[in-house]
Amino acid sequence: MSRNIYVEDVTEVPTPLRDVEIVERKGIGHPDSVADGLSETVSRTLCKLYRKEVGEILHHNTDETQVVAGRAAPDFGGGAIIDPAYILLVGRATTNVIVNKVLRELPCKPVALKAAREYLKNLAPNLDIDSDVVIDAKFGMGSDDLTGVYKASGVLANDTSFGVGYAPYSITDKLVLQTEEFINSNTFKHLFPETGQDVKVMGSRVGKNLEMTVACAMIGRYIPDKSHYESVIRDVCDKVKENALDIIDKSEEDINFKLRINTGDDYSNDVYYLTVTGLSQEMGDDGSVGRGNRCNGLITPYRPMSMEAASGKNPVTHVGKLYNIMSKLIAEDVARKVSPDVEVRVRILSLIGKPVSNPLNCNVQLVSGYRSSEFNKWKSEAEAIAEEWLGNIDKVTDLVINGKVRTF
Amino acid sequence: MSRNIYVEDVTEVPTPLRDVEIVERKGIGHPDSVADGLSETVSRTLCKLYRKEVGEILHHNTDETQVVAGRAAPDFGGGAIIDPAYILLVGRATTNVIVNKVLRELPCKPVALKAAREYLKNLAPNLDIDSDVVIDAKFGMGSDDLTGVYKASGVLANDTSFGVGYAPYSITDKLVLQTEEFINSNTFKHLFPETGQDVKVMGSRVGKNLEMTVACAMIGRYIPDKSHYESVIRDVCDKVKENALDIIDKSEEDINFKLRINTGDDYSNDVYYLTVTGLSQEMGDDGSVGRGNRCNGLITPYRPMSMEAASGKNPVTHVGKLYNIMSKLIAEDVARKVSPDVEVRVRILSLIGKPVSNPLNCNVQLVSGYRSSEFNKWKSEAEAIAEEWLGNIDKVTDLVINGKVRTF
Amino acid sequence: MSRNIYVEDVTEVPTPLRDVEIVERKGIGHPDSVADGLSETVSRTLCKLYRKEVGEILHHNTDETQVVAGRAAPDFGGGAIIDPAYILLVGRATTNVIVNKVLRELPCKPVALKAAREYLKNLAPNLDIDSDVVIDAKFGMGSDDLTGVYKASGVLANDTSFGVGYAPYSITDKLVLQTEEFINSNTFKHLFPETGQDVKVMGSRVGKNLEMTVACAMIGRYIPDKSHYESVIRDVCDKVKENALDIIDKSEEDINFKLRINTGDDYSNDVYYLTVTGLSQEMGDDGSVGRGNRCNGLITPYRPMSMEAASGKNPVTHVGKLYNIMSKLIAEDVARKVSPDVEVRVRILSLIGKPVSNPLNCNVQLVSGYRSSEFNKWKSEAEAIAEEWLGNIDKVTDLVINGKVRTF
Amino acid sequence: MSRNIYVEDVTEVPTPLRDVEIVERKGIGHPDSVADGLSETVSRTLCKLYRKEVGEILHHNTDETQVVAGRAAPDFGGGAIIDPAYILLVGRATTNVIVNKVLRELPCKPVALKAAREYLKNLAPNLDIDSDVVIDAKFGMGSDDLTGVYKASGVLANDTSFGVGYAPYSITDKLVLQTEEFINSNTFKHLFPETGQDVKVMGSRVGKNLEMTVACAMIGRYIPDKSHYESVIRDVCDKVKENALDIIDKSEEDINFKLRINTGDDYSNDVYYLTVTGLSQEMGDDGSVGRGNRCNGLITPYRPMSMEAASGKNPVTHVGKLYNIMSKLIAEDVARKVSPDVEVRVRILSLIGKPVSNPLNCNVQLVSGYRSSEFNKWKSEAEAIAEEWLGNIDKVTDLVINGKVRTF
Repeated sequence: MSRNIYVEDVTEVPTPLRDVEIVERKGIGHPDSVADGLSETVSRTLCKLYRKEVGEILHHNTDETQVVAGRAAPDFGGGAIIDPAYILLVGRATTNVIVNKVLRELPCKPVALKAAREYLKNLAPNLDIDSDVVIDAKFGMGSDDLTGVYKASGVLANDTSFGVGYAPYSITDKLVLQTEEFINSNTFKHLFPETGQDVKVMGSRVGKNLEMTVACAMIGRYIPDKSHYESVIRDVCDKVKENALDIIDKSEEDINFKLRINTGDDYSNDVYYLTVTGLSQEMGDDGSVGRGNRCNGLITPYRPMSMEAASGKNPVTHVGKLYNIMSKLIAEDVARKVSPDVEVRVRILSLIGKPVSNPLNCNVQLVSGYRSSEFNKWKSEAEAIAEEWLGNIDKVTDLVINGKVRTF
Repeated sequence: MSRNIYVEDVTEVPTPLRDVEIVERKGIGHPDSVADGLSETVSRTLCKLYRKEVGEILHHNTDETQVVAGRAAPDFGGGAIIDPAYILLVGRATTNVIVNKVLRELPCKPVALKAAREYLKNLAPNLDIDSDVVIDAKFGMGSDDLTGVYKASGVLANDTSFGVGYAPYSITDKLVLQTEEFINSNTFKHLFPETGQDVKVMGSRVGKNLEMTVACAMIGRYIPDKSHYESVIRDVCDKVKENALDIIDKSEEDINFKLRINTGDDYSNDVYYLTVTGLSQEMGDDGSVGRGNRCNGLITPYRPMSMEAASGKNPVTHVGKLYNIMSKLIAEDVARKVSPDVEVRVRILSLIGKPVSNPLNCNVQLVSGYRSSEFNKWKSEAEAIAEEWLGNIDKVTDLVINGKVRTF
Repeated sequence: MSRNIYVEDVTEVPTPLRDVEIVERKGIGHPDSVADGLSETVSRTLCKLYRKEVGEILHHNTDETQVVAGRAAPDFGGGAIIDPAYILLVGRATTNVIVNKVLRELPCKPVALKAAREYLKNLAPNLDIDSDVVIDAKFGMGSDDLTGVYKASGVLANDTSFGVGYAPYSITDKLVLQTEEFINSNTFKHLFPETGQDVKVMGSRVGKNLEMTVACAMIGRYIPDKSHYESVIRDVCDKVKENALDIIDKSEEDINFKLRINTGDDYSNDVYYLTVTGLSQEMGDDGSVGRGNRCNGLITPYRPMSMEAASGKNPVTHVGKLYNIMSKLIAEDVARKVSPDVEVRVRILSLIGKPVSNPLNCNVQLVSGYRSSEFNKWKSEAEAIAEEWLGNIDKVTDLVINGKVRTF
Repeated sequence: MSRNIYVEDVTEVPTPLRDVEIVERKGIGHPDSVADGLSETVSRTLCKLYRKEVGEILHHNTDETQVVAGRAAPDFGGGAIIDPAYILLVGRATTNVIVNKVLRELPCKPVALKAAREYLKNLAPNLDIDSDVVIDAKFGMGSDDLTGVYKASGVLANDTSFGVGYAPYSITDKLVLQTEEFINSNTFKHLFPETGQDVKVMGSRVGKNLEMTVACAMIGRYIPDKSHYESVIRDVCDKVKENALDIIDKSEEDINFKLRINTGDDYSNDVYYLTVTGLSQEMGDDGSVGRGNRCNGLITPYRPMSMEAASGKNPVTHVGKLYNIMSKLIAEDVARKVSPDVEVRVRILSLIGKPVSNPLNCNVQLVSGYRSSEFNKWKSEAEAIAEEWLGNIDKVTDLVINGKVRTF
C-alpha cells in the first residue's frame, strides 16, 4: 500500500463496553479553551490574510496563546473586575515576504489582535473587552529549518509527529459533549442569563451508572442574592437533566443518569461559584493551548489520545494538526461502514521532511472484542477511506480554515 | 474496599507485544521541557519558601510558564543571539499570609525568578542568562473556591481530575528515554561539546524493527565548519548507536535497531541544525508546560496518557499531579510483583472536595493477553500496594519537593 | 507674610522684548503629548472613581505612561500598521481601601484601561484602537512614607518641589500655541482630513522676524498620490499662514512672519511625512510623560521652566503639579493687574511634610526692564492674588479634575 | 559669522548674586537617574557594538527607559523584596545592516540587556539583580524620515532642537552636586554601609542662608533597630555637614549652612526611610529618562534649562543631546576666560536637516549685572571658543561614548 495504511482487527473490548469510562469537556469559556479558541482564530485569520495578500498560506504557528488569570471581586447583583486578565498571543508568523521581487510587510499582529478581541467579545458578552482583559502578542519568525521545509514544497511534514482519532462517540462522550453545547447555546443563555461560558463537564460511567458533574461559572449581575442563586442552580439542573435524558432516550441506551452541578459550592459557608464575567480567567484560572479538549471536543483518558495542541497550528503542513483531525475524519467514515459496536481507532505517524500525504504509517484498528467475519470487507473499505483522505489533504486544510472542523 | 480500588484482569495484548509502538521524548532542552522544568523548579522553590517561612505549603500552582522563542543568527564558529527568548513564569501563588495574627508578605516572585535563572544556567551552559533570555513572572492569587478547598483541610482534591500510569517500560520506552539521558549526560557533553541540550528522540517500533530518530541542536561555536559538523554527527551517531545496542543487549530483546540523526539536515543545500545556545527556543520554537513528556518522561501514544500538565502544580492538593505520579509509582510496584510480561496500567480518579486519599476510583489493570492463574494473588498484592500509596500521599509530596520523581 | 509670599521688582528686559525667543509646542498627537494626555486622563478617571466609591481622592500618581513606537508601512492611498504601538500605563494607585471597617478592592486598572482607550479613540479617529495599539498597565501601591504623608492630612506636600509660571503669553507663544490648536481643530480636520494629530510647531523669533516651522503627520489613506500630497501641503500652508496673520493683526504686533511645513520632506527623493494613523507613534517615535509641553502648553527655553511632569500626578497633594498650575494662574491674574509689557514670573517652593497652602516661599517677579513707579501698588495686588490662590488649593484640584486647566 | 554665533552682554544680575536660588540633584540611585543611567549605558554599548561590527555608529536612540517600582517589605535587620521592580528599556536601534552587500543582524537587545544588568549591579550592590528586578527591552526601527537624515550625512541635525548650558557652578550648585557625590562615594559607603544609593539633595539659598535637605534611602540589613537608625542618621548628618563646610571654606563664600536629613521621618510614629536595596524603585517610586538632572548634573529652576532627555540619545546626530552637552562645555571654557562673577549662558538652536556644525544660532550671554569694559575682548574669545567646539562635534561624540561627560 503506497501510503503505508495498515488495518488491524483488535479483539479487545471496545471502550464503551468496558466497566469504567471517564470523559471530560472543558467548555468554550474555560481558560484552556479560551486559549485554544484564540489560537485557532488567529491562525484562521492569518490564513485568510496570506491568501488575500500573497495568494498562498505562509508559514505560521500561533498555538501558544497564554491566558493569565486576573483578579475579580464577584458579588451578588454585580461585582467588579479588579485586575484584568492578561492574554499573550504567542507564535510564529511570516511578516516579511517577497512578492514580485518587492519586499512586503504584512500586518500579522494587528489583524491577529483584532480577530482575538472580536472572538472574545462574541464568546463572552458579559466581558468588557476594553477593561476586563489586556491582549498582547509576540510573534517571531520561525527557524530556517522549519521554514525551509515549508518553502520546499508546502506539503512536506514539518515534524515527526502523530495523530490519533476514534469513532463513534460513546453515550458518555455524547452526553458530555452535548451537555456543554446545550448550556452554552443561545437558547439556554436566553433562559438562564445567570450562567457563564466557563462550563466544565465530566462524565464518569461505571457499568450502567453514569454520573455527570457540571461546574458552571455563574454571573453575579443577574443573581441578586443567595436564594436566587440556589433556585437558578436547581432550575439549571432540571433543564440539563431533561436534555441529558433526551439524549439517552434517542441513543436507546440503558443508562442510570445522575447529575451534580457546582459541587464545590457550600451554601452554609457562603461558598458560591460566582463570577463577574462568566469566565474563571477573571480570577484564579490560567489557561494554555492544548491542555484541554482534543480535536473531537473531549478529553478521554480511556481512549488513545494525542498530546498535540492542534489549535493555532498551521493547517497546511503541521502534521500534528492535520493528522489528528484526519484521524478523526477517517475513523468517522470507517465507523459508518462497520458495525456500530465496533470502536474504530486511527493513528497516523509522519516523518519530518516527507510528504504529508505519505505518512510513515496509518494504522486503523477495528476494536470489536471478537473476530468479525466481515473483517476483510471492512479492511478494504477502511483502506479506501484512508487512501482517499490522505490523497486530499487540501480538503482538511480548507475545512480548518473555514471553521468546519473543531480543534478543541 | 474503602479507597475504591478496583483491580482488573485485562486480556488484551500488552503494548510491548503489539505490532506497532511509538514513543517520544522531548529532551530537557526542548522548549516544552524548558517550560516544564522551570514550572516545576518554581513550585519546588515556593514549597521550600512556604515551609521555611510559614511551616506548611501554601496554595500555589505555577504550571503555566510560557517560553516565547527569540531570534538567532547561528553560524559555524560562532553566531549571535539577535532577539532574546522571552520566558513568562505564570501561575498562582500565595503572597499574603496571616502568621500569628500578623499579615506577612512573602517574596514569591523574587525567589521564583532567581530559581528560574539558576535552573536555566545549569541546564544550558552555552546560554548567557544575562543577555540571551528575558524572564518575567505573573503570579496572581487563586479564586476563593480553590483556595477554600485548600485551607479547609490540605488534603481535599482541588479538582475532578485523574491520573494515569503504567509499568514496566518497554524496550522502546527504555531506548528513547535512556538515549536522551545519554546525550544530555555530562560524559557525553564532555565528549561532544558540539551537542546542545535540545534533543528530541522518537522511537517507532514495527514488529522487531525499531527505528530511532534523534534531532539534536548543534552549537556553532564548537563547530568551525561544515566538514566538522558532518564528522561530529557521524561520531555522535556511532556513540548513540553503541549505547542503544548495549541497552538492547542488556534487555535480552530481539530488536533490529536503526538510528537517524538530524534528518532535517540537507548538506547539499546548506541546511544544518545549528544553534548558538544549544536550545531551539533561541529561534523558532516556543514552549509550554504540559505539552511534552508525561510523568514517566515519555510521550506514548500507544498507551493511556493523561493530558495533565503536572509540572509546576501544587504537590499537596493537586490531584492531577499527585495521581499521575502515584499511578506510575503504584504501577511500578505492582509490576515488580507480577510477571514481567504483564503491562500494569493504573488510573486514579478524584472528585473535587473529597479527600485526596479517597479517590472516586483507583483502577489497576493487569494486561497480559491471557487469563493468568495467578490473578487472584496479583490482585490482592496490587490492592495492598495501592492502599499503601493512597494512605501515604505525603510521601509523594515529599518525593516531588525533593526532586526524587520526575514530572516530565 | 504668613504664606511666605515675596514680590520682586526685576529690572531685566522681559523675554518678549529681547532679541531672541524660541517657543515650541508638541501637538496633542505627538508621542510625548499622547503620554501626557493618557496619564492625565487616567488620573482624572481615578479621582472620579475614588470620589464616587470612597468619597475622597485616594493616593495615586499615574504620571509614567510610556509610549513605545510600533512599525508601519505608510503608503499613498492606504498603508498598513505592521507592528502595533505599545503603551504601558505606569504609576501608583490605591486599590485596597478600608471603608466602614470592610476591605474593598477598587477596579483601578480596568477603569484606567477603558478611559485610556476612549481617550485615544477620540484623539485619533484614524487609529484603529483594536489593532493598531496594545495598551497595558502596571500600577503598584506607593511607599509608606508618601502615603503616610497623604493620609495624615491630605494637604501636606508630598515632596520638596517647585512650580514655575509666567504671564502673559508673548506673540511668539500665541502663534505657536494657537497654530497647533488650529490645525487640530474640528474645522481644520474637516477641511483637511489629510492632516494627522501629530503636529509639532516651533517658533523662532529674532527681533521682529518670526519663523514658524510646522511638522504635520499626513495620513496616506486620504492622499492618493504625490501630487495630492504636494498640493495639500501648499493649501495647508496657506490656511495656517492666514490664521497666523490674523493672530498677529489682532495682537497689533509688528512681526515679519515666515512659515515652513514639513521641512524634512524631500520630494525629489520621495521623502514624505506620511503615516497610516496620523500619529508618529506608529513608527519611530516613542513618547514619555513630562518630556513635552509645560502646564501652559508650551516649551519655552527663554523662560524659566519646571522639569515637573505634571500630567497624571495626584491633584490633591502633588505639589509639583499643583504649584506649576497655580504659578501660572497667579501669574495670569497678576498680569491682568499690571502693565501689559510686564512679564510676570511666579515660582513656588514647597517643603515635604508641610501644608501645601504654606510654601517655603512664593516668589513673584515683575520683570519690566525698568523701575516702575507703580511697583508698590502692584506688589500688594500680587500679594493678595497669591494669598487668595494659596488659600484655595481645592479650587485648583477641582479645575484639574474637571479638565478646566491644561497640564500639557 | 559662518556658524551664527551671537555673543551678548546682559546686564541682569547673575543668578548666584540674586536673593533666591534653588538647586536639586537626584542621586544616581534615584529612579529617574536609574532610568537615565541605563539609557546612557545602553547607548554607549550600542555605539561600541556598531563601531566594532560596522565601523560607524548607526542610528539609535535608547532614551525611553521606564522604571516601574516594585513592592518591598523593608525591615530593621533585613526585610524582603515582595514584587521586583520592572525595567523596560525602550528605544530605536538599527538591527539590520547591509555590510558588503550582505544583510547582517546585530545583537542589539542582548548586548543592551547585559550592559543594563551590569550597570545596575555596579550601581547598587545591595540589589540582587537576579531576583529584585526584571529587565526587558523593546527596541524598534526608526522612521524613514529620521533615518534618512541620518544616512544622508551623519552630521545633519535630526530635529529642530536646542541646547542650553551655563558656567560656572554657584556655591549652591557645588554644594548640592558634591554632597550627593560624597554620599555615594566609595569612602562614604565604607563608613556608612547603611546608606543607599537613592539620595536626593535639595539646596535652597535665600541671601546668605543656604538650607540643604537630603533624603537618603537607608538599608535595613545594616540597621538592627531604631536606635541604630537614629544614631547613624546623626553621624551621617555630621559627616555631610563637615564635607559641606569644607566646600564652603574652599570657595571662600560667606554662607550660613543648615542641613536636614530625611525630613519625612517621624520617629514617634515609627516612620523611617528604610529600604531593602537602597533604591526607592523597590517600592513607590517609578522613574523615567529626562525627568531628573540636566547635563550638568543638576536641576536649576533659577537658570535656563532644557527639557531635553539627553541620556540614551544618539551622540552623533541627536542635536538635543549634542547641543546641551556642548553648551555646557562652551560655557565652561568661556567662563575660564572672563571674570569669575560673570554668569555665562549658552544656547544653541538647530534646524532639522542642516549640518549639526551650523546651528540656526549659537547665543552666548555674558551676564554680569554691569557693562564690562572687557566685553569686546570677552566677545571675541567666546566666539573663538564656540567656533572651535562647533567645528569639532566629533570630539563631543567621543567624550560621550567614552563616558567623559555626564548626561545626568
